[in-house]
Amino acid sequence: MVIISGPSGVGKGTIRKALFGIPDNNFCYSVSMTTRKPRAGEIDGVDYFFVSREEFEKRIRKNGFLEYAEFVGEYYGTPIDYIETMMEKGKEVIVEIEVEGALQVREKNPEAVFIFIVPPSRNDLIERLKNRGTDTTETIKKRIEKAEREFHLAYKYDYIVVNDEVFNAADRIYAIIRAEHAKTERSIHKYYKLLEGKE
Amino acid sequence: MVIISGPSGVGKGTIRKALFGIPDNNFCYSVSMTTRKPRAGEIDGVDYFFVSREEFEKRIRKNGFLEYAEFVGEYYGTPIDYIETMMEKGKEVIVEIEVEGALQVREKNPEAVFIFIVPPSRNDLIERLKNRGTDTTETIKKRIEKAEREFHLAYKYDYIVVNDEVFNAADRIYAIIRAEHAKTERSIHKYYKLLEGKE
Repeated sequence: MVIISGPSGVGKGTIRKALFGIPDNNFCYSVSMTTRKPRAGEIDGVDYFFVSREEFEKRIRKNGFLEYAEFVGEYYGTPIDYIETMMEKGKEVIVEIEVEGALQVREKNPEAVFIFIVPPSRNDLIERLKNRGTDTTETIKKRIEKAEREFHLAYKYDYIVVNDEVFNAADRIYAIIRAEHAKTERSIHKYYKLLEGKE
Repeated sequence: MVIISGPSGVGKGTIRKALFGIPDNNFCYSVSMTTRKPRAGEIDGVDYFFVSREEFEKRIRKNGFLEYAEFVGEYYGTPIDYIETMMEKGKEVIVEIEVEGALQVREKNPEAVFIFIVPPSRNDLIERLKNRGTDTTETIKKRIEKAEREFHLAYKYDYIVVNDEVFNAADRIYAIIRAEHAKTERSIHKYYKLLEGKE
């Protein structure tokens, strides 16, 4: 399981889409659930599962989230059932979550890979948030303040990837995934027969 | 510094050459020194520095090796001066060494990245050693026995890469190098200004 995280507006969604464009990948995207309204072009079940507060809170009570958080008055969460099904199928599950949520997941899933996305500069992030054009000035201000707090948590992640250019960033994440597969503690079991002289 | 290691005959040299064929790389190859005779096509200063026993032993006494080992009656070692110069220039130094030597280096250089190359199968390794056609039957037998002992040391490395196909293997190593650059402990200093709100 690969967790792509970082402040709001840093481009997590765009990077994730570029990542899924890499040929012959085995990726599977964990669709998040939210109570916020869809933005223009967002599709239910693709970008998010858009649900009511009642429905979201019912799932919280049933421990149905890998993580969830409330932000600017809306819930965001990662439904756990879909992830488990995909991992059983041998898929590489890519989870895109906010910083607060990611750190909740870290505690329970130390074997997952945690990637923090940073913008090339602070101004770049502010511009992106403004240009998104869907949020009010007040929401943008809150998001910027939140990003500043979140930057201080980057050190808790395994990797830091700068979103200088979306395809570069996606390619770096792909390299990280490949490298993680080659890590001795993750891969040595594949070579036991060879290494024990049985093959 | 990246250490490419693994049993003799596993294809370390071929993989390294493929790695250096990757465009826009910043790699620099640490040429080893040996007292063994050059094989057909091998060039002094490119494949190895071919030196006499006297010259090799003089350098040992002057602590001029990152590591060295004696195998089948010949010395193999990694001169330290060249590596230091290249690292100061900001180069990615690729060191290709035998297993025994690599583990010596590990103790003194915990920040280096250690990659163990494995053959796709035991028979594949035996075939490669036989087909090299430069060694006597006795030498081949010794190399196979040594490989068997070395397989048991794979767990001491950071990564295991299978040499199923040379370009695949080189590409996996390239992914490892890129991922290592993105590791938080290696990269966070680059983002301090941003993360501290100064940029």
